[in-house]
Amino acid sequence: MRVLGIDPGLTRCGLGVVDGVPGRPPTLVAVGVARTPPDLDTARRLVRLEAEIEIWISTHRPDAVAVERVFAQHNVQTVMGTAQAAGVAMLVAARHGYPVALHTPSEVKAAITGSGRAGKDQVGSMVTRILRLDAPPKPADAADALALAICHVWRGGAQNRLQDAIDRQRQVDRTTQGVRAR
Amino acid sequence: MRVLGIDPGLTRCGLGVVDGVPGRPPTLVAVGVARTPPDLDTARRLVRLEAEIEIWISTHRPDAVAVERVFAQHNVQTVMGTAQAAGVAMLVAARHGYPVALHTPSEVKAAITGSGRAGKDQVGSMVTRILRLDAPPKPADAADALALAICHVWRGGAQNRLQDAIDRQRQVDRTTQGVRAR
Repeated sequence: MRVLGIDPGLTRCGLGVVDGVPGRPPTLVAVGVARTPPDLDTARRLVRLEAEIEIWISTHRPDAVAVERVFAQHNVQTVMGTAQAAGVAMLVAARHGYPVALHTPSEVKAAITGSGRAGKDQVGSMVTRILRLDAPPKPADAADALALAICHVWRGGAQNRLQDAIDRQRQVDRTTQGVRAR
Repeated sequence: MRVLGIDPGLTRCGLGVVDGVPGRPPTLVAVGVARTPPDLDTARRLVRLEAEIEIWISTHRPDAVAVERVFAQHNVQTVMGTAQAAGVAMLVAARHGYPVALHTPSEVKAAITGSGRAGKDQVGSMVTRILRLDAPPKPADAADALALAICHVWRGGAQNRLQDAIDRQRQVDRTTQGVRAR
């Protein structure tokens, strides 16, 4: 199973791809960061980000895309940009028909380090160990994207398979209703 | 000047197009609401919304697109969806090369009613009067989209022209630096 993890952001958007199966150490495929210039207006930054994510998706053809779930926090201005970057990531993945999963930061930390309250450094060093890298990926956004992808592999994409089953059932129900209505 | 106003949302996204010039009553071109099913996952709702906005843009070919600026407020879950819907609206407009302007709710209310604290009903009835309609556009999201478009026409797209001038100057500066560096 190949997963593209996306740690959304306008200034730095972490992107990480791993191959793996639940319960075993996955392998690194690619890791990087997409940046958009802070002096561009938000709309044009979103266009640049869309183009970058398109390249990652078409290059690596993942089985699923995992995006960090964004919460409103202290820095309201930043969080809006992050939410919009996450929206663009979800949009691009869904447009290509890929399953999209959202994981919260604490779900990711818990999956990787065993604690939902682990710090950035701890996540970085566990990612380094799990993927047998020489050094932690820099910047932290790149390591976070890999952590997301690993978390999703280890959870076996279960969240999606369940959601897909629900969606398929709904589709069947609707078709049946449509037939009945005629 | 033709402006498409977008009041972003996943459940209901208001869309309104007006033609006009600053200081005179604009005329209504089109108004409506794009809806996406609440039982779909967010990623697929964003794909549906993108397709709807694409249709509105290619049908009406506006000179500019005005999107309501989203703030983090009480209902955090809703606000994230709204921010992502706004992001998709901005993305689609910018991808087509249209200038994108953001106006806050109080800027729009002040432009339309004279008061930044006007209620929904007051905005609806002023939009009805300004555009010489028989009744206020329903739902409120549709009226809000028209209010945004009118606000943008009356502000003369000044925000964009200024931003464009700044962007062009930056471009010139960069080119000049590039030449000097060689």
